[in-house]
Amino acid sequence: MSAPAKDETEFIVTPVSADDQPASGKRGTLEKEIPVFEELNHDAENTDSYNQNSITYLLANRFRDFGKKIRQYSITSADEPLIRYRKRLISKYESQNYDICENHLYVQEMEKQRQNKIRRLWMARWLIMFLVGLGVALVAVAVAMMIEYAAHLKFSILQKYFTNCAKDNCMYIPVLMWAGVNLVISVLAAALVTYVEPAAAGSGIPLIKSYLNGVRIPGLMSLRALIAKGLGVVLSVMGGLACGKEGPMIHSGAIVAAGLAKGRSRICKKDFNMFDSFRNDREVRDFVSGGAAAGVAAAFGAPVGGVLFSLEEGASFWNQSLTWRVFFASMISTFSVNVFLSSIHGHPTALSSPGLVSFGQFPDIKYDLLEIPIFFLMAVIGGLSGALFVFLNYKLTVFRQRFLAKKWLKVAETGLVGAMSAVLPFVLIYSVNQCYHPPSGDHGHGGSEGHGTGNPSQVYCKEGEQNIMSMIFLRTPESSLIGMLHAQPEEYNAIVLSIFIPLYFLLAVWTYGLSVSSGVFVPSLLIGASWGRLIGLGIAKIFPFLEANLGKYALIGAACQLGGTVRMTISLTVILVECTGDITFGLPMMLVLMITKWVGDFFDTSLYDMNVHVAGIPLLPWDPPAMSDNLKANDVMNAPVAVFRPVERIGRIVNTLRTETFCGFPVTEAQSDAVESCGRLKGLILRSQLTILLKNKVYAKEGSSIPKNIKMEDFRNEYPWTVNIEDITISDEEKDFVMDLRPYMNPFPYTIFKEVSLPRVFRIFRGLGLRHLVVVSDTNEVLGMVTRKDLARYRTEPKRGMLKMEILDIQ
Amino acid sequence: MSAPAKDETEFIVTPVSADDQPASGKRGTLEKEIPVFEELNHDAENTDSYNQNSITYLLANRFRDFGKKIRQYSITSADEPLIRYRKRLISKYESQNYDICENHLYVQEMEKQRQNKIRRLWMARWLIMFLVGLGVALVAVAVAMMIEYAAHLKFSILQKYFTNCAKDNCMYIPVLMWAGVNLVISVLAAALVTYVEPAAAGSGIPLIKSYLNGVRIPGLMSLRALIAKGLGVVLSVMGGLACGKEGPMIHSGAIVAAGLAKGRSRICKKDFNMFDSFRNDREVRDFVSGGAAAGVAAAFGAPVGGVLFSLEEGASFWNQSLTWRVFFASMISTFSVNVFLSSIHGHPTALSSPGLVSFGQFPDIKYDLLEIPIFFLMAVIGGLSGALFVFLNYKLTVFRQRFLAKKWLKVAETGLVGAMSAVLPFVLIYSVNQCYHPPSGDHGHGGSEGHGTGNPSQVYCKEGEQNIMSMIFLRTPESSLIGMLHAQPEEYNAIVLSIFIPLYFLLAVWTYGLSVSSGVFVPSLLIGASWGRLIGLGIAKIFPFLEANLGKYALIGAACQLGGTVRMTISLTVILVECTGDITFGLPMMLVLMITKWVGDFFDTSLYDMNVHVAGIPLLPWDPPAMSDNLKANDVMNAPVAVFRPVERIGRIVNTLRTETFCGFPVTEAQSDAVESCGRLKGLILRSQLTILLKNKVYAKEGSSIPKNIKMEDFRNEYPWTVNIEDITISDEEKDFVMDLRPYMNPFPYTIFKEVSLPRVFRIFRGLGLRHLVVVSDTNEVLGMVTRKDLARYRTEPKRGMLKMEILDIQ
Repeated sequence: MSAPAKDETEFIVTPVSADDQPASGKRGTLEKEIPVFEELNHDAENTDSYNQNSITYLLANRFRDFGKKIRQYSITSADEPLIRYRKRLISKYESQNYDICENHLYVQEMEKQRQNKIRRLWMARWLIMFLVGLGVALVAVAVAMMIEYAAHLKFSILQKYFTNCAKDNCMYIPVLMWAGVNLVISVLAAALVTYVEPAAAGSGIPLIKSYLNGVRIPGLMSLRALIAKGLGVVLSVMGGLACGKEGPMIHSGAIVAAGLAKGRSRICKKDFNMFDSFRNDREVRDFVSGGAAAGVAAAFGAPVGGVLFSLEEGASFWNQSLTWRVFFASMISTFSVNVFLSSIHGHPTALSSPGLVSFGQFPDIKYDLLEIPIFFLMAVIGGLSGALFVFLNYKLTVFRQRFLAKKWLKVAETGLVGAMSAVLPFVLIYSVNQCYHPPSGDHGHGGSEGHGTGNPSQVYCKEGEQNIMSMIFLRTPESSLIGMLHAQPEEYNAIVLSIFIPLYFLLAVWTYGLSVSSGVFVPSLLIGASWGRLIGLGIAKIFPFLEANLGKYALIGAACQLGGTVRMTISLTVILVECTGDITFGLPMMLVLMITKWVGDFFDTSLYDMNVHVAGIPLLPWDPPAMSDNLKANDVMNAPVAVFRPVERIGRIVNTLRTETFCGFPVTEAQSDAVESCGRLKGLILRSQLTILLKNKVYAKEGSSIPKNIKMEDFRNEYPWTVNIEDITISDEEKDFVMDLRPYMNPFPYTIFKEVSLPRVFRIFRGLGLRHLVVVSDTNEVLGMVTRKDLARYRTEPKRGMLKMEILDIQ
Repeated sequence: MSAPAKDETEFIVTPVSADDQPASGKRGTLEKEIPVFEELNHDAENTDSYNQNSITYLLANRFRDFGKKIRQYSITSADEPLIRYRKRLISKYESQNYDICENHLYVQEMEKQRQNKIRRLWMARWLIMFLVGLGVALVAVAVAMMIEYAAHLKFSILQKYFTNCAKDNCMYIPVLMWAGVNLVISVLAAALVTYVEPAAAGSGIPLIKSYLNGVRIPGLMSLRALIAKGLGVVLSVMGGLACGKEGPMIHSGAIVAAGLAKGRSRICKKDFNMFDSFRNDREVRDFVSGGAAAGVAAAFGAPVGGVLFSLEEGASFWNQSLTWRVFFASMISTFSVNVFLSSIHGHPTALSSPGLVSFGQFPDIKYDLLEIPIFFLMAVIGGLSGALFVFLNYKLTVFRQRFLAKKWLKVAETGLVGAMSAVLPFVLIYSVNQCYHPPSGDHGHGGSEGHGTGNPSQVYCKEGEQNIMSMIFLRTPESSLIGMLHAQPEEYNAIVLSIFIPLYFLLAVWTYGLSVSSGVFVPSLLIGASWGRLIGLGIAKIFPFLEANLGKYALIGAACQLGGTVRMTISLTVILVECTGDITFGLPMMLVLMITKWVGDFFDTSLYDMNVHVAGIPLLPWDPPAMSDNLKANDVMNAPVAVFRPVERIGRIVNTLRTETFCGFPVTEAQSDAVESCGRLKGLILRSQLTILLKNKVYAKEGSSIPKNIKMEDFRNEYPWTVNIEDITISDEEKDFVMDLRPYMNPFPYTIFKEVSLPRVFRIFRGLGLRHLVVVSDTNEVLGMVTRKDLARYRTEPKRGMLKMEILDIQ
């Protein structure tokens, strides 16, 4: 059909790069770029390369070395300012493959696919969603139980020592015990994450969001990450860190879902061979949406909140029937957690424990229209405080990236934070000796279910009284939160609250971003509930006629603080409503969360988006960057690109794969009349397909018939792992063989013309969830390629009310 | 630049049709089509046409006459079986334009668009959403108040007569009064809709869904429709029809939103010139999503439910920032309704009336794990009953389309239903003389807020007792519903319920689909609550240990019946939870709604989808039809198409527009070497653009410079109305002038190759919300065009567990 390739030199393989590599050249119009390129030319010589003729390779290496250099000398070098932490993309993040490659094999398979298969797949999808719900519930309950028992043990011992040593004047014993235990456990927590699976750090929500946006993040969905996440969060909470166990549930849920969809695990070397039809990025993505929602549902007992979370924060691609399946998974998850926890707590049929965290029953309190302005004020405070949280944490994250990049340093920092999380509270308990005299029979509110709170500490207080600070600190953050929401007005007085709030705020800032599995929901809620309660105390003083209920203000404050940090509105409203089991405050909560978001967004992005930016993940937002209409596909594309011929020499394929970092290659036929183009587009083939074809030796001597001994299963069986080209050995004889790419390539890749504006390119790319978009001339000749990073690097964000277009570096 | 057109005959203007017209030819592979075409040839001669040379015109006319013929002779003719009501698409429905046409004018405008403009637009969007919320609330409150006062008047008079005439033996007076009043009012209701704006019929939800899917429905968003809808629903409810006022709120909300976005109304001839940037289908669509959500929020006091409704039932295109705006509109709407209603009811700051309908406070009831199987059983019943409702209503709708197509017949039928809605209840009140003796001081539950229920009728009962049937019927359906949910166990006994349920079921089936503005929510809930209560009575007999609370079973039954009819899951759960103000039943409600949906879907589609199918609206579902991989773009496209040259003669433009029914025309340049193609694609121009250009006389003598005196505003000013080509007069001299289409055409229309499979075509079309998709050769020469109807006509639906691919007729 088409002329097979004859010689390597015939093909234009020229600078740069698709999907993996920073683009060069053609950027002259964008002034900001130029300095970077000038800097690059200085050390172009000392790059070592085994194929110095490839300009691409040279350039690629220059970039790589350049990056290394910055990292090496970052503390001292003058190059340092070049790392603009929020203004770069890391090139290692690839896109996922959502596009269905309708090649010959696929068509063959679809022809065989009948009625029954479709029905079986339909049922399998629901079944997997059921299993996801159940699996997530099991993980959640296991984590919750471990924390419950360990916390009971830890805090009851500490409480006893505190009370006894106050009398015997041996306070150094409990404080050393406390700090020591925290130090050891939090070091373990950090080591687990740092050395086993770094992708398990933090709450995982920013990474899940990126994953659902179409970014491939190595290790994120591995069983190893699940273990590091689940066990890690138990250790983090027990290590006394200011964190909750809810955020990590979302990541855990996503991993469970991805694992069930793939039906295999790399670590166990086990292939269950259940539903191999789901082994592609598109299907796994849908299950992961369900898993994340089920995670929220399990954590907060909020099935609708889970779906909305998945929608508002997570999903970038959505579909009605997916909504129903996601909803089903969330429902099963909440229901199972409810049944399991109710059984464990001894009343199996009452279904009284829908989620891991419960805010407890609120008595019948209402709000009045006159209180709405006060709530609005609180929303503004929440927005400001949340923005401050994000700002401080951003500075800290950058500091960590620059100075604490070494693994042992990360672990050490966590140990320090763990110890400080014992020492600082101790200082407060010791110095702020405020006492609370509970009415007889009242042992403090909330957390009655074994969080070790049944017996708060007396410390230096009189017999029958409790030290208020110890009521906050000698508990898990969750039971402190419940206490803060439900306590009597006298329990936490203004003095205690105004000392506690700033301290805990700083502790929470310090904790978030440590290399441990931890969530920011509960500490944020706790901070918010505390200042909400403080405001409530003030209101009760100033407007006694309002009969201010402190629990109400604590709840609104909690919502404001969390909303200001994570900038969720609708899903957070529903989560909080489902979590309190009370819809009364739904409406004011919505109003304040909306205002909180506006106030917060005026200053910076949400905590999660900040994380995504600092990590340099090429997340594609919903809308194209504003004011980018003057940019054309021409300006943003990578050009020229490496191309293959429909029947290609093995030697050239291997060579190109080894020297180029592209993930996709247009397949073209040479055009006699066109000089500057790479030939007329015939299809697109992925690196992952080529390596599998090479591994299976789907090639033959030129002229002889090419074997077609490969099936769709062979491709699916490699999912999600990729074969590394370096691992494939090709003999010199084989290098002269040829491979027919036509049955395997995607025959109809998406294309655009070079004059198309960036917003239009963006809408196509984002709307269809693409990985490669080929730029062609109007006779369909390949001119270049647009990939995720080429679009993600243009970012327009409103900040302090101003819009600014930024062009990110790719490192 | 390019050669101007010389002669009409030079261009290939050939059979068929894009967007508006059934495709002909090229369909040989699809056997089902052939009979239709054979029939067509018979009466090809007697079509009258002013341009009989145009085969397209002939064909178009044949189709039109063919349709007419069927309608004329439908009762007797043998052609009759050709109308397959659920298996056809009506060709009058066009697509909306979501694609941004990046032509010269747009680029010019965008270059001028700065920072400030973007910020102003951002604020304007939020402001409009605020106004939408407020406007919807006002409409909702106005409707609710009118119904409240009128119902109080009507039923208090009727109740008095019933009680008095039972003593005086003059029962004919109240029954004649009742029937007469119903007859008159329901005839008015029907006349208002039928003669003023037929698009206001029914709940409007199927049409809103279609609108949001991208179908243009004439009159749907007009002020006239709002009046017919709002006033119509008052009349329908007062006319005694078995319908509620909630569904129409959604349509009303959508109209308010569309009107505010456009800032003008055709009827008032008023142009407020507020935000003319929003005068395009894309922006209006987003506001309509918000309006529909705000409608739900106002009707049920369910802001989150509104957003979810808009998502689950309505939206086909979604986006995170839209979620926030939609949520904002819903919130404002609920909040405003709350403030207005609370003020009207005399306690303005208590915020006690979040929605129009309230299910009242449920006492503190719980459910037990053991009750879950009973709920599941109820879900199955709900699914079956809902499927039966849809089936019966489908048969009735088809009957109506065939035999009751005339306007006066529609009005007469409504009058009959209105009268029957008085006579049948009267028969029941008269014959089923069951009495209830309320404990002293108890005047029946719920509806205490002026729905005329304070004084139920004694009829033939003893002094101090009430006739149970009259407690159901001498009220608005809404207050009957509240009664059914909250009544004492003795109030409605098994005899009354088992007679009431089938009768009301049939009445509701008969009512839905009448040419009045009416909602199906409340009647469905009432039916469900009734059989739920009946089941509860049974459970209480059989399992006395469960302490069955009848309100609980009534609530679950109501959810099941409504779920079985409309097949919503997540949004219905949230709406019901927000409406009851009680989250306890959230989880079991979700479970039963999921099962209800599965059971119902086994038999048929939802009521709304049935409506969409019968109306022949080309709705594009979320996923491509299954088992359609063997169809290629080639098979589904319209070919050949009418094309224009970049510089085109006016005569030919006018001629083509008059003879063809296309809405979009590729602009091509002739290729010397290609025989079968229509030339190389240069752009796409819409009929609506051409008519505006013609109206503004943007043309000149050949050779002279073409005037460019037209701006974006001129296009926007016509939105959403289209200029009819018949209204434009072109002198004979002008016909030889030429128009340069290049500055106005869309220079980069979306294209695909002819070998691309239908699922891929579908995904591009659906994912990007297109109107025209041009099929090109691999040298970019136009081969054909794919439009909405070409894709919507392939439908694969599971029915009774089997998948069947249908190919719909286009009529």
